[in-house]
Amino acid sequence: MTKEVVIDGGGFAGLRAAKVLGHTEGVHVTLIDKANHHLFQPLLYQVATAGLSQSDIAMPIRSILSEFQNIKVLQGEVTGVDFKARTVTTDFGVLSYDDLILACGVRHSYNGHEAWEPYAPGLKTLEQAVEIRRRILSAFEVAERAEDAAVRRRALTFVVVGGGPTGVELAGSIGEMTRYTLSRDFRNIDPKLTRIILVESGARILGSFPPKQSSRATRDLEKLGVQVWIQSPVSQINETSIEVGAEKIETMTVLWAAGITGTEINQGLGVETGAKGRLVVDAYLNIPGQPDVFVAGDQAAFTDPSGQLLPCLSPVAIQQGQAIAENILRDIKGEPRVSFDYANKGQMATIGRSRAIVDLGFVRLQGVIAWMTWLLVHIYFIAGFNNRLSIFLKWCFSYLTNKKGARIISGASWRFFDTLPETKLDKDISDSLDVAEGQEV
Amino acid sequence: MTKEVVIDGGGFAGLRAAKVLGHTEGVHVTLIDKANHHLFQPLLYQVATAGLSQSDIAMPIRSILSEFQNIKVLQGEVTGVDFKARTVTTDFGVLSYDDLILACGVRHSYNGHEAWEPYAPGLKTLEQAVEIRRRILSAFEVAERAEDAAVRRRALTFVVVGGGPTGVELAGSIGEMTRYTLSRDFRNIDPKLTRIILVESGARILGSFPPKQSSRATRDLEKLGVQVWIQSPVSQINETSIEVGAEKIETMTVLWAAGITGTEINQGLGVETGAKGRLVVDAYLNIPGQPDVFVAGDQAAFTDPSGQLLPCLSPVAIQQGQAIAENILRDIKGEPRVSFDYANKGQMATIGRSRAIVDLGFVRLQGVIAWMTWLLVHIYFIAGFNNRLSIFLKWCFSYLTNKKGARIISGASWRFFDTLPETKLDKDISDSLDVAEGQEV
Repeated sequence: MTKEVVIDGGGFAGLRAAKVLGHTEGVHVTLIDKANHHLFQPLLYQVATAGLSQSDIAMPIRSILSEFQNIKVLQGEVTGVDFKARTVTTDFGVLSYDDLILACGVRHSYNGHEAWEPYAPGLKTLEQAVEIRRRILSAFEVAERAEDAAVRRRALTFVVVGGGPTGVELAGSIGEMTRYTLSRDFRNIDPKLTRIILVESGARILGSFPPKQSSRATRDLEKLGVQVWIQSPVSQINETSIEVGAEKIETMTVLWAAGITGTEINQGLGVETGAKGRLVVDAYLNIPGQPDVFVAGDQAAFTDPSGQLLPCLSPVAIQQGQAIAENILRDIKGEPRVSFDYANKGQMATIGRSRAIVDLGFVRLQGVIAWMTWLLVHIYFIAGFNNRLSIFLKWCFSYLTNKKGARIISGASWRFFDTLPETKLDKDISDSLDVAEGQEV
Repeated sequence: MTKEVVIDGGGFAGLRAAKVLGHTEGVHVTLIDKANHHLFQPLLYQVATAGLSQSDIAMPIRSILSEFQNIKVLQGEVTGVDFKARTVTTDFGVLSYDDLILACGVRHSYNGHEAWEPYAPGLKTLEQAVEIRRRILSAFEVAERAEDAAVRRRALTFVVVGGGPTGVELAGSIGEMTRYTLSRDFRNIDPKLTRIILVESGARILGSFPPKQSSRATRDLEKLGVQVWIQSPVSQINETSIEVGAEKIETMTVLWAAGITGTEINQGLGVETGAKGRLVVDAYLNIPGQPDVFVAGDQAAFTDPSGQLLPCLSPVAIQQGQAIAENILRDIKGEPRVSFDYANKGQMATIGRSRAIVDLGFVRLQGVIAWMTWLLVHIYFIAGFNNRLSIFLKWCFSYLTNKKGARIISGASWRFFDTLPETKLDKDISDSLDVAEGQEV
């Protein structure tokens, strides 16, 4: 009799699990995702800063998995799970499972200030990336036609909240854009005079990296005209300004890259949630007491034997997806399950066009060499030959000419962002800009 | 003293006029457009059918014109003109002009049935193309997960209204997509069984082409599974169905490619409007009695000496932009103006992946040869090396693999389309799928 495996989420974890179970006798897989595409989250900031197009970093899950006849892909949202009945409820009906893999990621959090969202969009979905791009480019258009110096100054001030990899990448690319890409295009303004502030509440940016690399990244950002404010908690955000500690900054454009939280579904399961509302799992990535319910990727709060909680990174997600699928295969063969053991692949972050920091544990790289490492890793691992080639060409082109390939203001209006369904906000992988073998899905 | 030329619209006509006036001593140009990008309208249907990404067919007007120090580009909307005071009113202030070039195109028209728009989006802007793509791809997702056969049948029925080039290209690409691209990706449905109906109220499709080519195009469409209904006026459209004559067709997806009309601004000018609300112009492309106000492209209703009204095609727009700019230069040199004379470049339309019809007047081509001609012309003339290369690669890729590069469902929801500001609907060039030297801007 066939084993029915349901996977919630087509991110790095879910996709890897599906591929391992593909072509397997006696297993049928149903993968559910709210989007029709797998999103290559590590490069999402490049869509937001006009370096890449949406389709460069998104692939239809259907076509990624089309070779596997035992895998069915359905677009929809899982809204609840009944552990006893072994069923999942979705927005299009109820499905039964023998094994369930939850891998629908996290959503970003405003730490209780959800009202800030319209003024400070986060970066998790393609729609949000396009909206951020629209806001950044529109700000320069406003400045170019502004009569009033105060309006112009406000339009040319950008604030990025959160000094993690996403915040650093966003601030760095905006800096690079103003320094190089836009410099020749305007008559009334000088984009080089743009003010870019990266705001971090903690003691240093890129806290997950060694302190030396944090300060190197800070210097690199400053070279691109980015001011780095540490120990600066945000107290207020509205349409025209942001308050950081005592300071009030007039700005049209605030971007949010601080904080994540579990998705709505986690609350409804009635099981233990750990830090950031992620689901606590045991050594086998099961919800304790539920051997047929697995959790992988950002949605899982897995603490390794050394007592360390694994971060929200694509390598973690991919390895967990792999481990879960292999245990399901062991069940079929009647072999005992193996507990999950994370092989640390290190982390990377890039700053602007030709600098990065790479921490592989045994070796740490800075500057151009780190950037080239970063570039190769990302081009090599991104899903889909088509995308890879197109991205590679765009990067060469923009490196050689300082032009950006995708400087298109799209997405209708502020209203567009307001009408994003809530459900769109809680998918995909979090700040997984830090990647290595990461991208192989 | 410097002559101030204001251009409303960065389409084929406005861009060409700006380029001719660029680098000219004693001329300062201000180009205003609602979007920040020039849109390569002839390929917009490929974005709508997932063959290309937005940025492949859109280029920032700013960067196209950045080499010209005497040209300033402002993003905004011209809302009115004061012929006496020689000023234009915009949403960001008032500008004075010595010469004014109106070239902001047409918008599509529902011939008095504006209520149909939410159920039958038209194809004029990038936002609309993305929305159409979202609807087409989502319909297959609905069908794949539908339990009810009636729902599935409705989801797999597509109706395109309007048998002009845009309607033919849309219907043809949907047919191709269902036959080749999607065929292997679904488990519950067979995309080949998709029902595609092209509805034309007139006696034949592609009325602007010779009858022989119309019937060839009809046969080519039928080979792709498209039913062509002629003499079939639409009487009703709602969320779940469309009524064509006596027949009622259950469908989730209706696309509108029938009819255009002038933009709002035309009404406010208090001058004569011709067919479809376009502005009547004299032999010099001036509004009669206004020698310093020119109209070009789709916005102009120009009747040539033989009494024929010129169609809405990019070659017309480009030649008119050129002629107007040259007359402005003649004014400066004190030479007499020259009346406009259109050099007919013929027209083309493509049907699916490897068929097209080309009518150059002196020669008419069908089938694969016509398609290759069409392909070369479009790749050669599209603005921007970057785009051209990327498009060429995508076409090669999709031709060889039958995959589509941009099958991403984006754009948040039905609500997204509803919140498109009216102003977004009335720009760019109309059914200028028919192109030749057309694309050179």
